[in-house]
Amino acid sequence: TSLLTHAKGRLFLNCATLTPNVHVEIDRAIERQGGASLETCLASSMTQARRGTLYLMCGGKPDAFTRAKPVLVALGSTIRYIGGAGEAAKVKALVNMVMNCNTAALAEGLGLGHALGLDLTMLREVFSQTGAASRVLETDGEDMQARAHDCYFSAAHAAKDSGIALALAKSVGLTLPLAAATCEQYQRLVALGRGDLDKSGIAELTFKGRIQ
Amino acid sequence: TSLLTHAKGRLFLNCATLTPNVHVEIDRAIERQGGASLETCLASSMTQARRGTLYLMCGGKPDAFTRAKPVLVALGSTIRYIGGAGEAAKVKALVNMVMNCNTAALAEGLGLGHALGLDLTMLREVFSQTGAASRVLETDGEDMQARAHDCYFSAAHAAKDSGIALALAKSVGLTLPLAAATCEQYQRLVALGRGDLDKSGIAELTFKGRIQ
Repeated sequence: TSLLTHAKGRLFLNCATLTPNVHVEIDRAIERQGGASLETCLASSMTQARRGTLYLMCGGKPDAFTRAKPVLVALGSTIRYIGGAGEAAKVKALVNMVMNCNTAALAEGLGLGHALGLDLTMLREVFSQTGAASRVLETDGEDMQARAHDCYFSAAHAAKDSGIALALAKSVGLTLPLAAATCEQYQRLVALGRGDLDKSGIAELTFKGRIQ
Repeated sequence: TSLLTHAKGRLFLNCATLTPNVHVEIDRAIERQGGASLETCLASSMTQARRGTLYLMCGGKPDAFTRAKPVLVALGSTIRYIGGAGEAAKVKALVNMVMNCNTAALAEGLGLGHALGLDLTMLREVFSQTGAASRVLETDGEDMQARAHDCYFSAAHAAKDSGIALALAKSVGLTLPLAAATCEQYQRLVALGRGDLDKSGIAELTFKGRIQ
């Protein structure tokens, strides 16, 4: 709240991945103090941040979006206005939920391929040309094979974001078995003290003889 | 076995998705009769079959592959020799296992987006530009939204293929929570009498108010 003391006339950009409700509460608190706020969710990683090519999803008043634009264009190569406060956070939660599922599924595919004695470089190449292709295959496949889990998006963040999506699902009475299984896997990695690994680290759970 | 009576000197191409062990047994049975066999797994769908642009993964003796090539080039635009009998079937099982997981995850993402009142055309567009992107988003995303489940690759086949992969995992002592959750979803669709839907039909289970 001390941050909001001088909020009057100011514009706040909030890039944290939070539940949609928290974004709505923040938006209201800032407006009560005479300020404006825009949730600015990032659907990219550190590499894009360094290059100024982030994918930005914005939620808040259209006015706040217009005011923020000169700053946003310096940060991101794609800037989308999604809707009112909390709406961008919903989309962000869904993006990360599906991304995490695809990552966990890829880890299972490569882990089983490894256990069956297949050449994983060949397997990734076949995956890339077929229905198994995905963005995470491009970004995480080789890292899973090579056990290169330098952190761009941590397993702990993956656990948190899948948890946000599952809470949203619960709030509307939906059961999502894949998202739940993925969240459990990431929580398991965190419980094993490996939440600092990149999200690709989930492969440590699915390859034989890595983490037991 | 009557098929094998005149096997001597003949080459058999087997395109069915079977367990690797069955491919090995077929290969042996044909060789005993003096014939040759090549497993020719297809990692594409009817559209590609009609266009002669199938993705073919072949397993068997290198000689059999060489003999089959003139026929294979008419069927497929990519023809890969994977290894001995049963090896192509392993890769095929893994391709379909990961594809089915990604499909189930996409259905959950779109189903939750729908329940949250998001514009699904916008959501698919955001998915396509972020870590949630996948081949199945391109092939099945719009169909899930529009409930257009004309069958290219049936839910029943998805259940079978994920089952083959899970049996392989069991044989090497691996537990795969995502693949298991996906297989259960497809089996549920089959149990509901909807195994004839396309694999995109899994969205019927994850969207509110479709199948209960």
